[in-house]
Amino acid sequence: MNVEKVEKYLKEAIGKERVKSSIDFRAAYAYDGTPTGYKAIPDLVVFPENEEHVSKILSIANEEKIPIYPRGAGSGLTGGSAPINGGIVVSTEKMNRILEIDEDNLAVLTEPGVVTYDLQKEVEKKGLFYPPDPSSYKYSTIGGNIAENAGGPRCVKYGVTKDYVMQLEVVFADGTIAKVGSKAVKSVAGYNLKDLIVGSEGTLAFITKAYLKLIPKPEAVRTAMAIFPKIEQAAQAVANMFKAKVIPTACELLDKNSIVAVENYAKIGLPSYAEGLLIVEVDGYASIVDELIERAMEVCRKAGAEEIKIAKTEEEREHIWHARRSLSPAIVNLKPKKINEDVVVPRSRIPDLIKGVYEIAKKYDLMVVNFGHAGDGNIHVNFMYEPHEEEKVERAVREVFRLTLNLEGSVSGEHGIGWMKKEFLPWEVGEALEKMKAIKKALDPNNILNPGKIFDLS
Amino acid sequence: MNVEKVEKYLKEAIGKERVKSSIDFRAAYAYDGTPTGYKAIPDLVVFPENEEHVSKILSIANEEKIPIYPRGAGSGLTGGSAPINGGIVVSTEKMNRILEIDEDNLAVLTEPGVVTYDLQKEVEKKGLFYPPDPSSYKYSTIGGNIAENAGGPRCVKYGVTKDYVMQLEVVFADGTIAKVGSKAVKSVAGYNLKDLIVGSEGTLAFITKAYLKLIPKPEAVRTAMAIFPKIEQAAQAVANMFKAKVIPTACELLDKNSIVAVENYAKIGLPSYAEGLLIVEVDGYASIVDELIERAMEVCRKAGAEEIKIAKTEEEREHIWHARRSLSPAIVNLKPKKINEDVVVPRSRIPDLIKGVYEIAKKYDLMVVNFGHAGDGNIHVNFMYEPHEEEKVERAVREVFRLTLNLEGSVSGEHGIGWMKKEFLPWEVGEALEKMKAIKKALDPNNILNPGKIFDLS
Repeated sequence: MNVEKVEKYLKEAIGKERVKSSIDFRAAYAYDGTPTGYKAIPDLVVFPENEEHVSKILSIANEEKIPIYPRGAGSGLTGGSAPINGGIVVSTEKMNRILEIDEDNLAVLTEPGVVTYDLQKEVEKKGLFYPPDPSSYKYSTIGGNIAENAGGPRCVKYGVTKDYVMQLEVVFADGTIAKVGSKAVKSVAGYNLKDLIVGSEGTLAFITKAYLKLIPKPEAVRTAMAIFPKIEQAAQAVANMFKAKVIPTACELLDKNSIVAVENYAKIGLPSYAEGLLIVEVDGYASIVDELIERAMEVCRKAGAEEIKIAKTEEEREHIWHARRSLSPAIVNLKPKKINEDVVVPRSRIPDLIKGVYEIAKKYDLMVVNFGHAGDGNIHVNFMYEPHEEEKVERAVREVFRLTLNLEGSVSGEHGIGWMKKEFLPWEVGEALEKMKAIKKALDPNNILNPGKIFDLS
Repeated sequence: MNVEKVEKYLKEAIGKERVKSSIDFRAAYAYDGTPTGYKAIPDLVVFPENEEHVSKILSIANEEKIPIYPRGAGSGLTGGSAPINGGIVVSTEKMNRILEIDEDNLAVLTEPGVVTYDLQKEVEKKGLFYPPDPSSYKYSTIGGNIAENAGGPRCVKYGVTKDYVMQLEVVFADGTIAKVGSKAVKSVAGYNLKDLIVGSEGTLAFITKAYLKLIPKPEAVRTAMAIFPKIEQAAQAVANMFKAKVIPTACELLDKNSIVAVENYAKIGLPSYAEGLLIVEVDGYASIVDELIERAMEVCRKAGAEEIKIAKTEEEREHIWHARRSLSPAIVNLKPKKINEDVVVPRSRIPDLIKGVYEIAKKYDLMVVNFGHAGDGNIHVNFMYEPHEEEKVERAVREVFRLTLNLEGSVSGEHGIGWMKKEFLPWEVGEALEKMKAIKKALDPNNILNPGKIFDLS
């Protein structure tokens, strides 16, 4: 890449104030939230303000065959926005306006650089609700959430980001600006490019606008905690809850090591016999939530819960969530290093997953802590270790992925593949991988859009 | 195509009893449910029983460059399964087993040839519920529903077929058997081929198994009817209902001509002043449905409804639905010919759509009847005409599509493009069409899978 030439072209195309080549800028955009850190410093960082700018940037990059790295807040955990081969980081920071809240159609039209939390607060002012809530929602952007198809605790009831994207304006690798999806609630006109692009981690198109579905804000919420002597009982309660027609808004599971860590850290009175803890939240109409949380806790009692606590006040609710929120600081104290794998299995396989993970941890003599969104089978497996145990951990993680796939699960429920999990994708998708590569080549023949992510082209 | 050679290859590959070449068979599979009838008699009709058979059939067809027409019940309305260029019809009739109802994970694994209604009845025996309900559900198949991404009245609350497909086993054009999607509730591992294939009308892959999400069967249902002096009032009530946090299970709108036709046909006492009629159904927990239907009717009252009827008994509920069900037989009486276009607009644009359709009908001096799933903006526009008015109707339909797109809608909410609506797809998807074609070429380079559907390859 002839950086000076490309810089000149870009400055002519979108204005020199939007093109940065100083080492300060380049270093600041060299990494994302992935624990293992940055891979390469980009050659340029650009800040388009509209789809025309993006189209010009991509046209130049396509002509010159230069890598483009679309970037929201850079908070991804698998290297999705990291510039691994040099090239141009294209930030959405200056495309950060909410364009229209459409109260009649329960929808919002937004630019990609808007922070998810900010969008949620704005629509809530109108009594509306945008459910997706990845842990990063206070700083990650809508565009990044769409590129990664972000989830979150609430997705057990409300679905993932994909379920809220109705229409996208995108720019393809050749600079073509197009709309995919529909502002209508349903449409079967042509191929569903919208759902193909959502979750494609910036490798198929650059998102420049999103028309997102909203729902009315739920009237009321109820929260409870159930403590089980056996993890299998907690897992069974999760499965039975759905059969009892309770779809919880959140259904968080903590295993024995999680409970011990939280208790040591926060001293909130969790019993030492506890091997499983469920935090269950329901929401909906004011007149039904008490009945729903009672039903959920009845399911827990029947599955073997020894203690049940239903929050009667906002303070009690906060106390219950405190156990969950203490987890991250609590386990950070356990060992100097941590790796968090984001696996997901069919709900009924959660006990097998946790049992198998314990066996793997025992085999490699490693500390493991499991917790997560049990309602949708998404368990965060955390190995806690000393620096010298790195290689052991890598082997253990590979076994966890094998186990997950044997249980008909997926190697990533929320975080994506990026460059970190490329090795494991073929294990999961098998023969379909070649078809994914064929689509990539068809839409981005020069491989300029986020190259080296999800898979390498052979 | 050398029919004798291909017939021989196929008989060797999958058994001669599964390959039919008699004119009786070929004529019986020459058409689908599209009103304008069949286009071409196929050369062969084959009946695979598993994915290995399908893989062999597609491998032979790919080698010989022969068109393949995947076919469920052949009930599509836009020619999706019609064999328009000769070639081989591949029927899923012999792949009609429900393989597993997974009660723990609320899912069902099925072959594609199972009739949707049969699947619904089977899962209901376990207290489970498969919501998608296209009008054809008593005879159309799951595979066909997936290929067309079928909707139905209930999709306003429960979503379309796509929202219930978790994983598919498919065969690609080159014979590759692969799984797409995941049995886990969420997965972000690689490209979302599953949602690309759903709704692709058999042009990208042949579906051989489907793992479908189920939900617990709702405990109770309530039904009501509201009659409005003005169509705008009825449309406004639909929009306001969502703001009042009532998501109806069904929300069917009848316009003035529909009401008059039903009244003339069934004499059920609908008032002559009525220009809009809403049938609203809610479902959910037994303890909340009375409150919900009251809320919905309060919204209707405020929007201007003159008469409200909430069904107190199953008999009264049937009476309300009788108005809706009488529509098809009632309008058939009006004129010798009918064309039903399945357009969809954002909910708030329904009044503009209906007003615009009336103007178009007036301009061409045609009779038009509008009704449909107002909750999701999906209006069935029916022109009723004499045979000699055919050409006028065609022009009017084109104007209806233009109007729909001006209102940011879609030319097909449920029925698909097939070969009937190919002309109108570019109007809606614009620049994205070339990207759809690129994907088709990448996955099916010899264009054997349902060629000539959705678009023609140039």
